[in-house]
Amino acid sequence: MTDRTHETAVRPPAEGERRIRCVVEYDGGAYAGWQIQPNGPTIQAALEEAVLRVTGETRRVEGSGRTDSGVHARAQVAHFDTAASLPADRFARALNAHLPKDISVRTSALAAPTFHARFSAVGKVYRYRIEHGPTRPALDRDRLWWVSWPLEDERLHDATARIVGRHDFTTFTDAERRDEDNVRTVRRAAWTRNGTRLVFEIEGEGFLYKMVRILVGTLVACGRGRIAPDRIDALLAARDRALAGPTAPPQGLELLRVLYPEGE
Amino acid sequence: MTDRTHETAVRPPAEGERRIRCVVEYDGGAYAGWQIQPNGPTIQAALEEAVLRVTGETRRVEGSGRTDSGVHARAQVAHFDTAASLPADRFARALNAHLPKDISVRTSALAAPTFHARFSAVGKVYRYRIEHGPTRPALDRDRLWWVSWPLEDERLHDATARIVGRHDFTTFTDAERRDEDNVRTVRRAAWTRNGTRLVFEIEGEGFLYKMVRILVGTLVACGRGRIAPDRIDALLAARDRALAGPTAPPQGLELLRVLYPEGE
Repeated sequence: MTDRTHETAVRPPAEGERRIRCVVEYDGGAYAGWQIQPNGPTIQAALEEAVLRVTGETRRVEGSGRTDSGVHARAQVAHFDTAASLPADRFARALNAHLPKDISVRTSALAAPTFHARFSAVGKVYRYRIEHGPTRPALDRDRLWWVSWPLEDERLHDATARIVGRHDFTTFTDAERRDEDNVRTVRRAAWTRNGTRLVFEIEGEGFLYKMVRILVGTLVACGRGRIAPDRIDALLAARDRALAGPTAPPQGLELLRVLYPEGE
Repeated sequence: MTDRTHETAVRPPAEGERRIRCVVEYDGGAYAGWQIQPNGPTIQAALEEAVLRVTGETRRVEGSGRTDSGVHARAQVAHFDTAASLPADRFARALNAHLPKDISVRTSALAAPTFHARFSAVGKVYRYRIEHGPTRPALDRDRLWWVSWPLEDERLHDATARIVGRHDFTTFTDAERRDEDNVRTVRRAAWTRNGTRLVFEIEGEGFLYKMVRILVGTLVACGRGRIAPDRIDALLAARDRALAGPTAPPQGLELLRVLYPEGE
């Protein structure tokens, strides 16, 4: 969940190299998030290790953005450059042979030299799944937030409608640097209910650090009556994280899709 | 997956006891199946242990039927008798406090004295999930069979239509006693495809040992061209397990629902 930095010019691959674009699925449960860090395994580190095993090259694998510790991805997009001669579409299975079973490169393809998984992205879709009922789930327990409080769907929908649009989302981020531009556009956000399963889908140009999980935690607080739905507007205006609800747990969140301009 | 034995009279609870009916969800991945056995943990043993912890009573927990090692249940039905005074609907959460996180009693209720989870059942619905594509799945990997061979949906549908109805399913069971009555009625069976996800749903009055998984393995063999769909009729007639396809792996299978007569 990173900002887009349109100013950065995308450097094409070096002479004699190609850029490979991958769609990556992962179960984030065992990882300290996407981005390489000194403590704990990360998705990015696993991918870079697999690229090294396949190509013999130490390469940076760039993702469309970071996902937090414990967050999943159905279709994260990443790229890397390589001088290896393997056909572009063969990288998926070649990399998978060196990846743990909770990470899979689902497809690989030749990317345009100006493609950049992060800078070319024009949007992202996240999904958050809740099991809403008096008893805990057993199946899918690592992919859901179990909520046992009563929730009023109408309050949930009312509050959700208020976050759609272009707003300063400072209230809904844990980012430390509050001086940054925290204005983002949420293109759509909606809940669907199927029995005890509540699924939230949100699409935006980009999301701030922990923004989706804080939004979900706050919308659920609205649904259960802790926050009046019509207070969302005031919460946005206040630019104060302390006013929002709790951060929903990571295992319910999944990066569903990364959007790129037509043809990219 | 047991036969129904209509002849057995259902014994009501003892004087001063009530019969409690539970809907149980479980992730079978860590278990040697439903039924108690000397080697390996079972769902039934975990439930009986939880009943003991909640009530102080050593009781048999009867399920609607066995599920094999590694098979899941969305809504297995089970019952037990108890002299404990806890309100019937409170057992679910009380038992869950003593159950591992991969087993959950989703609901508990007072059952009729003549109710029996196994003998009262009039049908079962199973679901089998396949991920069909060239690369392995990462999310849901413990709930799917990954199939990378080409499959023709028309062949799959053609073969599936031939197993619906009343047949001798001896060819499609690993049961050791071949002299038993292996005639069963499959009320419906169908595949639905959603992208790379193939989902098989089958409803019948009851199923033989490993029948659903051998059917799935055989239908997939038809889909990939190893068995001609119109040979299914001859396979049924032959009553010979050796002619059927391989047994599909357990992790793709889930007991979805157990059916009881209206009002039971």
